[in-house]
Amino acid sequence: MSSEPPVPETSVLAVASHVVSGNVGNKIAVFVLQSLGCDVAALNTVQFSNHTGYRQWKGTRVTAEEITDLWDGLKQSYLDRFDMMLSGYVPGAAAVEAVGNIAKGLKEKSQAKPGSFFWVLDPVMGDNGQLYVADDVVPAYRGLVHHADLILPNQFEAELLSEVKITDFASLRTAVETLHSRYNLPHIVITSVSLPLNTQQDTPGNPPRSRTMSVVGSTRTSNGKSRLFSISFPVFDAYFSGTGDMFAALMVVRMREAVHNAASSSLKDKASWLSDDDVDALELPLAKAAEKVLASMHEVLSRTCEAMQKELDAALAEGSAKEAGGLSEDEKAKKIHLLKSRAAELRLARNWDCLRGPVIEYRAVKLE
Amino acid sequence: MSSEPPVPETSVLAVASHVVSGNVGNKIAVFVLQSLGCDVAALNTVQFSNHTGYRQWKGTRVTAEEITDLWDGLKQSYLDRFDMMLSGYVPGAAAVEAVGNIAKGLKEKSQAKPGSFFWVLDPVMGDNGQLYVADDVVPAYRGLVHHADLILPNQFEAELLSEVKITDFASLRTAVETLHSRYNLPHIVITSVSLPLNTQQDTPGNPPRSRTMSVVGSTRTSNGKSRLFSISFPVFDAYFSGTGDMFAALMVVRMREAVHNAASSSLKDKASWLSDDDVDALELPLAKAAEKVLASMHEVLSRTCEAMQKELDAALAEGSAKEAGGLSEDEKAKKIHLLKSRAAELRLARNWDCLRGPVIEYRAVKLE
Repeated sequence: MSSEPPVPETSVLAVASHVVSGNVGNKIAVFVLQSLGCDVAALNTVQFSNHTGYRQWKGTRVTAEEITDLWDGLKQSYLDRFDMMLSGYVPGAAAVEAVGNIAKGLKEKSQAKPGSFFWVLDPVMGDNGQLYVADDVVPAYRGLVHHADLILPNQFEAELLSEVKITDFASLRTAVETLHSRYNLPHIVITSVSLPLNTQQDTPGNPPRSRTMSVVGSTRTSNGKSRLFSISFPVFDAYFSGTGDMFAALMVVRMREAVHNAASSSLKDKASWLSDDDVDALELPLAKAAEKVLASMHEVLSRTCEAMQKELDAALAEGSAKEAGGLSEDEKAKKIHLLKSRAAELRLARNWDCLRGPVIEYRAVKLE
Repeated sequence: MSSEPPVPETSVLAVASHVVSGNVGNKIAVFVLQSLGCDVAALNTVQFSNHTGYRQWKGTRVTAEEITDLWDGLKQSYLDRFDMMLSGYVPGAAAVEAVGNIAKGLKEKSQAKPGSFFWVLDPVMGDNGQLYVADDVVPAYRGLVHHADLILPNQFEAELLSEVKITDFASLRTAVETLHSRYNLPHIVITSVSLPLNTQQDTPGNPPRSRTMSVVGSTRTSNGKSRLFSISFPVFDAYFSGTGDMFAALMVVRMREAVHNAASSSLKDKASWLSDDDVDALELPLAKAAEKVLASMHEVLSRTCEAMQKELDAALAEGSAKEAGGLSEDEKAKKIHLLKSRAAELRLARNWDCLRGPVIEYRAVKLE
């Protein structure tokens, strides 16, 4: 494990939610970015006591005006220079537009120096077929994503943006190519594809394998064609919040690292870091970055799983001893949900080595 | 440099300001705590674009009600267990009381298990004879500090709390003893004492030494006597913001570390981690912690100084080329102040080794 940061000096503007307790949104993204050597400006779009997966929380959202005001505050004091921007959860369509305006301003300023600014956009709208933002957030993102350099939708969000339902490999390819062509998007990673890609089917006689999922990525060619790869990884039998935010923050760093280490030393000075057409899918900085990101993710999730069951058992034992049956069944179920949510918070602070020195286990394969 | 965290699993509630850009308040405290292996809940008392030393900023303060509401949010979801609490800048007397109520609640809950909760309070009120909070914040802190385990006032704040003007060693001792006795305070570190303590005077014929300052600490005995030590260190010829916040966060970790490494293995199970009366000033965990903290501080400040002048020169050259004299003298002075403020932001993200593996250069000496 090296203590040298993997990237040259990198100034990142991170726009996402803040929770007092737990590890989602900017709470996890800022730590990941800082741990990997970035200087981070953190614009928090909400301050909640905890993430919404607990099903109860307190706190406030920041308005579109407050977002714009904070940005004006940075501009007036010469604090608006960034190499990269990462945007995650933003509450409501007006606030999404305010964040989009920040990114557009930074893009414009960087025109004279191609490659000097890169926007990673996680278009947080929903998951598993369910929207968890207001309806008008979807068109707000559709009007914005063509300014982004890399977007990180999950499968449902990729469907919302491309308006292509992903049911098999052909429709997956169509969705990615639609995102490239309709929005002129340079780089795409779909962070959770549940189609069986590059995995052997279970066959009778073999023990059942654990469930796998894939990320699917592509960097477009100069004529808008996709260069598709996927990386499959085993899924843990637990529900974690903040994995998308951690993935996004790691991608910011690993993408910059891969571009700086690219065979073509001029890549970092090209608009949107677009690799030449002769670069194969598996040689893309995007693919190399995603491999490292998934390695870190898998290590952190493994350690979280280990700690989780121990914490949960201890909490339940203590709780039941104290309350001795004083709770109704409903109250008990609620309490167990809350304790499970807490136990499943991603463990990062003591697992710094997973971020800095990930060991790659899952490799990208070309999708053709 | 070890990658093992210096403390056992430690859950910290950090209450302070948040700035989008730069490194003060919780923005620096949370990173320091996380880097040293703590699991941190961060309750942000403001969200400003930048620190107020720039003389202009935008953003909003959190109200006392919002602080209490966020705390209620944590409590209702079993997220209110903390080993330590660190509180820094809190806007206004009502908000100070709201934060005090959180600490009091945590103290009460810990009564059954002495040593299981420890509150480090930085009573942010002013500096160098100037109050920078509303007048009623002073009595709010006077009404609260007796709940704290360790307070970290600067010289001016120590004067405000003790109502003793510190002009020489005798009055310094009186101030510390007043803090111990009036508020029953277990541990005190005054973070910036400008009296000449333990430093030789410059003598003719010797080159003038750089200006030094001292921290002065004490852990009271069972009968309320002080055990005074000081650590002197050279002062950099520049103004940095966030040093108090960084000091406080480092003290949280190093104090816990020192108590866990103490000769008396039962110290960590004693209320307020109060060392036995036969422990000498220089053997106090407080003194050992402060030595490590100052070592980290000095390394980070050295690196900040190095980077600062380079950044400032580059920014000024670029600015003057672009504007070619289009600014009035007033505008120029303002711009230079803003660029200087930015250049003086503490450099942490790439100096992780200063936090993890500080090399002690300045040792505590006993004050008698």
